[in-house]
Amino acid sequence: MISSRVKLIAPSPIRKLVPYANEAKKKGIKIYHLNIGQPDIRTPAPFWDGIKYYKEEVLGYGPSDGFFFFREAVAEYYNSFGANVEPYNVFVTTGGSEAILFIYLILGDIGDEFLIPEPSYANYITLGAMAQIKLIPIPTSVENGFHLPKAEKIEPLITPKTRGMIICTPNNPTGTVYTKEEMELIAGIAKKHKLFVISDEVYREFLFDSRHHISIFNIPEMEEYAIVIDSISKRFSACGARIGFAVTKNRQVLEALMLCGMSRLCPPTIEQIGALQAFKKMDEFIPQMIKEYKRRRDVVYEEINKIPGSFACLPEGAFYVTCRLPVPDVEEFAKWMLTEFNFEGKTTMIAPAEGFYLTPGKGKDEVRIAYVIKEEELRDAMQILKKGIEKFR
Amino acid sequence: MISSRVKLIAPSPIRKLVPYANEAKKKGIKIYHLNIGQPDIRTPAPFWDGIKYYKEEVLGYGPSDGFFFFREAVAEYYNSFGANVEPYNVFVTTGGSEAILFIYLILGDIGDEFLIPEPSYANYITLGAMAQIKLIPIPTSVENGFHLPKAEKIEPLITPKTRGMIICTPNNPTGTVYTKEEMELIAGIAKKHKLFVISDEVYREFLFDSRHHISIFNIPEMEEYAIVIDSISKRFSACGARIGFAVTKNRQVLEALMLCGMSRLCPPTIEQIGALQAFKKMDEFIPQMIKEYKRRRDVVYEEINKIPGSFACLPEGAFYVTCRLPVPDVEEFAKWMLTEFNFEGKTTMIAPAEGFYLTPGKGKDEVRIAYVIKEEELRDAMQILKKGIEKFR
Repeated sequence: MISSRVKLIAPSPIRKLVPYANEAKKKGIKIYHLNIGQPDIRTPAPFWDGIKYYKEEVLGYGPSDGFFFFREAVAEYYNSFGANVEPYNVFVTTGGSEAILFIYLILGDIGDEFLIPEPSYANYITLGAMAQIKLIPIPTSVENGFHLPKAEKIEPLITPKTRGMIICTPNNPTGTVYTKEEMELIAGIAKKHKLFVISDEVYREFLFDSRHHISIFNIPEMEEYAIVIDSISKRFSACGARIGFAVTKNRQVLEALMLCGMSRLCPPTIEQIGALQAFKKMDEFIPQMIKEYKRRRDVVYEEINKIPGSFACLPEGAFYVTCRLPVPDVEEFAKWMLTEFNFEGKTTMIAPAEGFYLTPGKGKDEVRIAYVIKEEELRDAMQILKKGIEKFR
Repeated sequence: MISSRVKLIAPSPIRKLVPYANEAKKKGIKIYHLNIGQPDIRTPAPFWDGIKYYKEEVLGYGPSDGFFFFREAVAEYYNSFGANVEPYNVFVTTGGSEAILFIYLILGDIGDEFLIPEPSYANYITLGAMAQIKLIPIPTSVENGFHLPKAEKIEPLITPKTRGMIICTPNNPTGTVYTKEEMELIAGIAKKHKLFVISDEVYREFLFDSRHHISIFNIPEMEEYAIVIDSISKRFSACGARIGFAVTKNRQVLEALMLCGMSRLCPPTIEQIGALQAFKKMDEFIPQMIKEYKRRRDVVYEEINKIPGSFACLPEGAFYVTCRLPVPDVEEFAKWMLTEFNFEGKTTMIAPAEGFYLTPGKGKDEVRIAYVIKEEELRDAMQILKKGIEKFR
């Protein structure tokens, strides 16, 4: 009845606890959502102004690769961090998700392989199932802050079927920011073995403690191999806009993106106008946004360290931390928090990290926490989590 | 370098003449666009009002299957023509295009087959290549107004790999509206052979000469087999909104849609609010819209019949007509119209119908005309087409 490829899609680890949360809400329990990457930060005014400025009478199709003026603005933004791209290198997609699916379809035939550090953003796994490509995990661990292993650990994973490596920096779900050396390591392996690097840089600005972001475009001689996956969802706190892009200097990939893009006509029209204005005025809101996330990062890290038996490295960027909890099965615990526990009518919802791993059984005692709620609430949520763990054990 | 599946995607027959059109425009030639399905009709006021009403501070993710209040409005609209569906039967997608791709992935594994009357909407073909399913053409012809052949012509096309039949009524690219008997024919074959019917009803309201639309949901006992593909693009003249939906009573298909849907997070948020308002006030703008298209249909049909050697049946719905022209290779002629011809500084751009056929060589002397420009201009465009043909021969 249903195809075998769709049967292989695992339900989102982030969303599969939702029915339990809904039951708890019905009982009047307040839930702190640390389980999803939906920020509470206001979508900046320039985005809303842009939408108001849209004055066409007909909401028509845009170009399949996005409005040229928008692609110009994206290119200008990319060049501000030394990417050295032209507007035609920018292909606008319906969210970063569509960029991932298109790139899988373009680079991989069925069974072709892509290396990806695990834990990884869960939709890389589900979209990979839809495209029927195979993801091969590069192991990383909480002990070394989920940084990349040496080339000797990565190169043996390469087979004749390997088409590319997928990285995400700053990382969802770990909060890790790859160093210049790590980016050079990946680029070096790519050039040596003629592999694509798919670099997800959606959280590019979300950096703490004076870290710098190294884009794959900052590494020389990667023109042929580098593809950046990007989105305005987090940068402009506009997840519902569904505006993303794939950026590459590889002409063949750009032509193939156009073939896929024409098949679905175009990305949303109005939101490109909003995003255009937000790109023009990033300086007006990004620094504040980062300051806010930094405060929250500090709260989460401080509170995790108060939980005996837990372990986390200091998150370097994005707005997530993946850490070890002193419970053997976090999924069971997360469910228990929603069904059996509350403290003064409140509980905390978390995302079990197991769903971010490709290797069965890995990450069972780990959790991803998204610090996307206000500081005070966040502290309360973390203290409730601590109380839950004490009671659960 | 590029996967074999993406290499198989043929460039859009509608868009591949665009570079020639751009050259002509540079020379100052005015082009009448009868080649694309982008209506010039104003997006109705209630849609724009809906967008203005969106007052959230954060443009957040919506549910993967769309906002429940929007699905309620869609279900109510479906029930107004006797579909008898519930809100949970409606799955909101990013345009009808995404609904097609998801349904291909859900119902078909690689090499699985779907029957489809040819000529067919070109993106069924390109999205089919991306999903690696196989489309088997059900032949129809201009002589009988592109109506369906008898069961004896359809059933022999069914193999053990056949998963479903795709129909589109009112039809893009032909303007044909299937009768109750034709819908029953398809439904009967579906039930007999346990095949899905994917019924694209995007142009449901676009009917002329007192015709009635028969939805696949109006045929009894199709709960398990019927999937409707739909979109607000044409109905609300809002192609750039990217709001579509798949509607089905089949639980397994709904669950599979959710798995695909979670992988891309959600459809655009704001446009669902716009579409909600437009659904509530359809009576305020749909009748006028149909009246306008009817006048244009009459103009196009009248002018086609003035071209010696051309042949068309009277279009019954949608805003297209596919007709035979007295030129052996319409693609060559369409290119010539853009590169070599103009009348008083104006020319007409048309879509060669060959790209809508699956069978190589079929439709070479046919054209699809979209009557999406104002009556006066449309008449001028058709007269220029006639002059072009006279000169070209």
